[in-house]
Amino acid sequence: MIKRSKKGIALWNKAKKIIPGGTQLLSKRSELFLPDQWPSYFKKANGCEIVDLDGNKYIDMYSMGIGSCILGYADKDVNKAVKKVIDYGSMSTLNSPEEVELAEFLVKLHPWATKARFARTGGEAMAIAVRIARAHKGREKVAFCGYHGWSDWYLASNLSHERNLDGHLLPGLNPTGVPRGLAGTALPFNYNKIEELEKIVAENSDLGVIVMEPFRYQEPKDSFLQKVREIADKIGAVLIFDEVSSGFRFNVGGVHMLYKVYPDIAVFAKGMSNGFPMSAIIGKEDVMESAQETFISSTYWTERAGPAAAIATIKKMSQKKVQKEMDKTGKYLLKNLERIKSKHNIRMEISGKPALLHFNFEYGEMNRALQTLLTQEMLKEGFLCSAGIYVSFAFKKTYIDKYLKSIDKVFGILRKAIDQNTVNKLLEGPVAQSGFKRLT
Amino acid sequence: MIKRSKKGIALWNKAKKIIPGGTQLLSKRSELFLPDQWPSYFKKANGCEIVDLDGNKYIDMYSMGIGSCILGYADKDVNKAVKKVIDYGSMSTLNSPEEVELAEFLVKLHPWATKARFARTGGEAMAIAVRIARAHKGREKVAFCGYHGWSDWYLASNLSHERNLDGHLLPGLNPTGVPRGLAGTALPFNYNKIEELEKIVAENSDLGVIVMEPFRYQEPKDSFLQKVREIADKIGAVLIFDEVSSGFRFNVGGVHMLYKVYPDIAVFAKGMSNGFPMSAIIGKEDVMESAQETFISSTYWTERAGPAAAIATIKKMSQKKVQKEMDKTGKYLLKNLERIKSKHNIRMEISGKPALLHFNFEYGEMNRALQTLLTQEMLKEGFLCSAGIYVSFAFKKTYIDKYLKSIDKVFGILRKAIDQNTVNKLLEGPVAQSGFKRLT
Repeated sequence: MIKRSKKGIALWNKAKKIIPGGTQLLSKRSELFLPDQWPSYFKKANGCEIVDLDGNKYIDMYSMGIGSCILGYADKDVNKAVKKVIDYGSMSTLNSPEEVELAEFLVKLHPWATKARFARTGGEAMAIAVRIARAHKGREKVAFCGYHGWSDWYLASNLSHERNLDGHLLPGLNPTGVPRGLAGTALPFNYNKIEELEKIVAENSDLGVIVMEPFRYQEPKDSFLQKVREIADKIGAVLIFDEVSSGFRFNVGGVHMLYKVYPDIAVFAKGMSNGFPMSAIIGKEDVMESAQETFISSTYWTERAGPAAAIATIKKMSQKKVQKEMDKTGKYLLKNLERIKSKHNIRMEISGKPALLHFNFEYGEMNRALQTLLTQEMLKEGFLCSAGIYVSFAFKKTYIDKYLKSIDKVFGILRKAIDQNTVNKLLEGPVAQSGFKRLT
Repeated sequence: MIKRSKKGIALWNKAKKIIPGGTQLLSKRSELFLPDQWPSYFKKANGCEIVDLDGNKYIDMYSMGIGSCILGYADKDVNKAVKKVIDYGSMSTLNSPEEVELAEFLVKLHPWATKARFARTGGEAMAIAVRIARAHKGREKVAFCGYHGWSDWYLASNLSHERNLDGHLLPGLNPTGVPRGLAGTALPFNYNKIEELEKIVAENSDLGVIVMEPFRYQEPKDSFLQKVREIADKIGAVLIFDEVSSGFRFNVGGVHMLYKVYPDIAVFAKGMSNGFPMSAIIGKEDVMESAQETFISSTYWTERAGPAAAIATIKKMSQKKVQKEMDKTGKYLLKNLERIKSKHNIRMEISGKPALLHFNFEYGEMNRALQTLLTQEMLKEGFLCSAGIYVSFAFKKTYIDKYLKSIDKVFGILRKAIDQNTVNKLLEGPVAQSGFKRLT
C-alpha cells in the first residue's frame, strides 16, 4: 500500500505560489486528479514505472506523459541516440544534419507530402501550420474541429463581439488577452457533423483553412473524412490534420494513412519523439512553399536532440512493430475492463481506439466524485489512473494483469459506495476539478 | 587551409528541396554567409570548435549557436546534468521538480519578480508574455522596439490596411498569413527615441503593453529606459523586456539588472540553457496572475531536460564568473580589432557591448561583397565569421590570438581588394544575401 506523497504535495503547494497554475500544462494540474493527494512530481520514470519524491513506485496506467512516451519512459534506444548528439554537441552555428534525415523520413512515411518544417512543441507547430495555410490562400478564416492548443488563432474561436458570450464554445479555454480583431476568424464544427462544416462554408465564402484532428475518441462515420476532403477541394481550402495526439499511436505516421484520406498539411508532436521536445509540419509541395512567403523562424527549432530523438523513436517503432503490439495490449485491456465493469455492474462508457481509451462514468452529477474515488483507490494500489488510458509499448502483461486485479478490487469498492451512497464520504480530499472540454 | 565542405554543400542543396528555406532559422541559412561555399552542417561541436561533415575543423568566431551557447558547445557540466535527467526519465505524467527549482532561482536573481512560467523557444515565450500582458490590462495595443520573433502579435506590425505597405516597417519580416484584424495592434518605436513612444501614447489611449529589448547594439542614452518605465507607469501599461538575446550574456540574469530599470515581465531563452530548448517568462505578482485568466498550456513545456540545463547553466555562470570573463575577452577582441582595422585603414563600425559585438562595413554598396569576402577568406583560415561576434566563455586566448592573426591577414586582403577594386572578382561564389533588418 502506497503512502501519501508528502514531499510531492508540499512541492505542489509551493509551485502554485511561484508558477501561475503550478505547471505549464493544464493536464498536469494535481487538482484534475486528486486534490491534496496526488503525488504531483516524479524523481524517476522508467518503462511505465514512476517513482515519486517520497520514493513511492507507481505504474502509470493513465497518460504516459500525456501521450508523449509511446515507447515508455527513458527508452534506452531513444536515450542513447539523444545522449550521443549531446556528447557531440546538440547546438551550433551550423545546422544539424539530423533534421534533413527526419524530413526525408517523414515524407517517405507520408507519400502525399514532399516537404517538412520543424518546431519544438505541438502548439507552435499548429500555429505555423495555420500561418502557412493562411499565407497560401490569402484567406484568413479557419473552420476547425477538436483541440489545437493555446495560440491566438485557435482561442479566437472563444472570442465574441458580445463579451458575455466569451468562453461559451470551448469551456475552459479562456481567450482573455487574445485580440478582438480575431473574432470571427475561427469557426467550430463537431466531429461527424458534416452539415456543420457545410453551413460554415455556405456562410463564409472566404473560408481558407479547415483544421481538424482526424481521430480522437470517435471513428469517422458516413465517410466523414472523405467529405471534409471533398469540401476543402471544392472551395480550395487548405486541409490541416492535427496529428499531435493521434500520430504514431495507431500506426507509424499519421492515423490518416489508415483512413486513406490525405490532408494538405499534417502536424506531429508528442509521440514522434518519446518525450523530447519536437514537432513537425509536413505538407504538399505548393502549400509548404508558402512558408517561404512569411516569416517563421526560431533559434531553438534548430537544436539537434529533438530530431535525433524523433529518428530513433520512429525507427524503433518500425522495427519492433510497436503499434501492432499496442493495439493488442489495448484490446486485451478493453476486453477485460468491459468484463470487470459488467461483473460489478458499473455504468462506464469506454470509447476510443484500443491504443487510446477514454472512460466516462454514467452517473450524472456523481460522475466526478466517482472518478475521484477511482483515482484515489487506484493510487493506493500503486497506479496512476484517470479517465482514460494512453497505451504504451512499455505496458507488459504482468503490469496489466496487476492493474486489472486492482481495478476489479476498486470497482467493487465503487459498487458498494454507489449502493450505500457513500462515494463522497469515502473521498479523503476534495473532488477533482474538471479540465477543458474538447469539441467532439 | 580548409577545403570546401562538399558534403555540407550537397546536403544544404538537398535540404532546400525538402525543408522550405532549408532550415528552421533564417539566421542559419547558408546564403546569408557564403552562398555555395558555407559548410552548412556540423558533425561535432565542442568548446568553440566545430567539425563539419567533411571533417574540417573551424573555430566559431561568429554566433556560437546564435548566442545560445554562452558556456561553449557541449559544455561538460550542463551536458552531465541533462544526461542525468534523461537517464532518470525526462518526461512523465507527473511534473518535473526542476521547474520549481528554476522558478525560484530566476526570481531570486530578479528580486522585482515573484513568478515564472516556462516554454521551450524564445518566440513562444514572447507570445505568452504578450498574451499575459494583454489579459492583465484588457488593452490590446502593443508598442514595441526591437526584434521579437515570428508570432502573429509581432508580425502584425508589418500589416497595413493598405496592402502595398506590407513589409515596409521591418524589411524581411513578411506578415503574409497574419490576420488583417491585427492591423494596428503593434506599433513600432526606435531605440533611444523616446519621442516616438510618446507619440504612440498620445495617439493611442488604449495602449496596454510596451515591449522592447533593453539592449541590443546601442547603450541607452538620456535615461531612455527610465523614461520608458515612467511612461508605462503613467499610462498603466505592462512593460515587457525581451532578454532572449541580452539575458545571461552580460551578467547572471537580465541586462536590465545592470541598468537598474525593472520591467513587469522579462523573457529569457537562448543563453539561459546553453543550447537546450528552454525559455522563461518571469514577472511581478499581479501581472503574472493574469496567466490564470487565459489558456496557456503545452505538453512539451513540461519536459525535464530544459529546466535541468538551465539550472546547470546558471549555476556554472555564477560559480565561474562567466560574464566577467566574457567581458574581458570581448574587450581584448575589441581593442585588437580596432587596432587591426586602423592598421589596414578599413572603415568598419564596431558597435555593441564587449560580449556582443556587431560589425558594419562603411563602404556603401560594396558592404555586402566585402562582408562576403571577409567570411570567405576567414573560412579558409578555419574560422566561422560574419558581421559580429557573440562572445563565449569557451573563447580561450589561444583561439583569439589565432583569430586576430587571421583577421590581420584577411584585412590585408580586403585592403588590397578595395584599392584594386577586385572585391567581387575575388569572390568564389555569389554575394551573401541580407537577412531581416532589426528596428534599432
